[in-house]
Amino acid sequence: MRWDEGFIAVDWGTTNRRAYRLDEAGRCAGEFEDSKGILSFPDGNFASAIAEIRERLGDLPLLLAGMIGSNRGWKEAPYVPCPAGLDDLVKALVWVGEREAIVPGVSYIGNGRADVMRGEEVQVLGAVAARLVGRDAMICHPGTHNKWVQLRSGAIHNFGTVMTGELFSLLKSHSILADLLGGKVEPNEAFRNGARRALERGMLPAQLFGVRAGVLLGQMQIEDAASYTSGLLIGTDVGIGMTWPLSAQIAIMGRPELTRLYAAAVEIAGRETIEIDGEQSFLAGIHEIAKRIS
Amino acid sequence: MRWDEGFIAVDWGTTNRRAYRLDEAGRCAGEFEDSKGILSFPDGNFASAIAEIRERLGDLPLLLAGMIGSNRGWKEAPYVPCPAGLDDLVKALVWVGEREAIVPGVSYIGNGRADVMRGEEVQVLGAVAARLVGRDAMICHPGTHNKWVQLRSGAIHNFGTVMTGELFSLLKSHSILADLLGGKVEPNEAFRNGARRALERGMLPAQLFGVRAGVLLGQMQIEDAASYTSGLLIGTDVGIGMTWPLSAQIAIMGRPELTRLYAAAVEIAGRETIEIDGEQSFLAGIHEIAKRIS
Repeated sequence: MRWDEGFIAVDWGTTNRRAYRLDEAGRCAGEFEDSKGILSFPDGNFASAIAEIRERLGDLPLLLAGMIGSNRGWKEAPYVPCPAGLDDLVKALVWVGEREAIVPGVSYIGNGRADVMRGEEVQVLGAVAARLVGRDAMICHPGTHNKWVQLRSGAIHNFGTVMTGELFSLLKSHSILADLLGGKVEPNEAFRNGARRALERGMLPAQLFGVRAGVLLGQMQIEDAASYTSGLLIGTDVGIGMTWPLSAQIAIMGRPELTRLYAAAVEIAGRETIEIDGEQSFLAGIHEIAKRIS
Repeated sequence: MRWDEGFIAVDWGTTNRRAYRLDEAGRCAGEFEDSKGILSFPDGNFASAIAEIRERLGDLPLLLAGMIGSNRGWKEAPYVPCPAGLDDLVKALVWVGEREAIVPGVSYIGNGRADVMRGEEVQVLGAVAARLVGRDAMICHPGTHNKWVQLRSGAIHNFGTVMTGELFSLLKSHSILADLLGGKVEPNEAFRNGARRALERGMLPAQLFGVRAGVLLGQMQIEDAASYTSGLLIGTDVGIGMTWPLSAQIAIMGRPELTRLYAAAVEIAGRETIEIDGEQSFLAGIHEIAKRIS
């Protein structure tokens, strides 16, 4: 088995997946993305999915990260406890076949809290390997569940998950606010107002009802409701982030439509931000892992 | 038209309604409850629903409160702004026919906030009329949307709505926590732990994800998840209530399965509670309104 002649990396989430062919230098030589997340395989027939990936990208070894290692995935890869660096992930790789390994997630237990991540660890540690952030840094990783990740000496020292994206989605799809939240979310004045309010902390479930009341009583334009509500949720999230022992600078990693919202809220909270490319970080992290297998 | 010979009162909500026949002394002489809330009449044919109520309870004048006065109800009854007492409600009654009046809701605009209620105002002001609370009091009225109501000189001076019940329902029905929240919610040690955590304030969307991580990592029993999560939400709600200028005693009004949970959380927050019967309060309030029409 030769990993140093190139391999396939898959970032396999709950509802989508991204597959890359990496050459021996870690450069991307082919890729695709689709919506075949692990929930698309209720029968657990991942072997045929893997064969299909190889048909598209080449008959190469595979490194799989994300929810594919969960108890609903191909084979469960137990969480590696914090502090967790790249070497810890490599030691805990779970091999399904001789040429297919699953990267474990990371867990934290302490201070009366418990937390888990799967997939973000490759990106976060990859960002360090690619020198996009320093070895002691605070990363904000928005998504369905935002992660605040504290790096120390190049390892994941601690982290906290905030259900921001999922809460917005629940409110938009199923709540009394549903018919108010159809608009596009922008980091505009309505968003900033929401974020400023939420940074006062602790009032979120009251402030959310205030959106409906505000529209009913003509105090809020319906066009502003989605951005304002997003501001409330992301402002609450950033308020939680600010309780961590922070470096002066927060590195925000993820899709630009989310990172620019978080950057706006973090700046209202008085911190400097840098934005980091999540895909570049993933490729750097997964290449580092592959190098250590070879 | 004679209201002093008895009348029918309906507390007509979004998803259910309760109808009462009151005699001339305000005593309940017949009643029924069903699930024909205003959403059961998408065609807006409330006239036949009214006829059916009279068939069951008698050919009497009707006083209707709750969402029946909303823009999705029979006829919109504009909100009465705070401060609002019983006389203000009577002045703003909306008459559909000569024998059918709708009680308006109450609104608050101020301090950069906007809020609305429909239905609770009759109960809250009825509790004062029935001397179940004093004329200067703080009432907590749990439900889908909890209301914190500040009474001054017997009128609704200010109030705030918290989306607690709806958030629990969204999480239970549609979220990543759904399969953890099927258990019965009790004011047990798990509930109290959640409430204590939440009273530290501002961490709710992180603490919610912690339920899932806690179960995954064996730090929380799945049987405790529903009560703990309810404790997080109600504790957050009570934390919001504690930001009001409070009297020493909080009067909690509503269904016993909810009031006992709120009472547990309010007591953790260091305040004394009394519990008030919501139905008795509604009947007292609606009778006071009828007396002022006659």
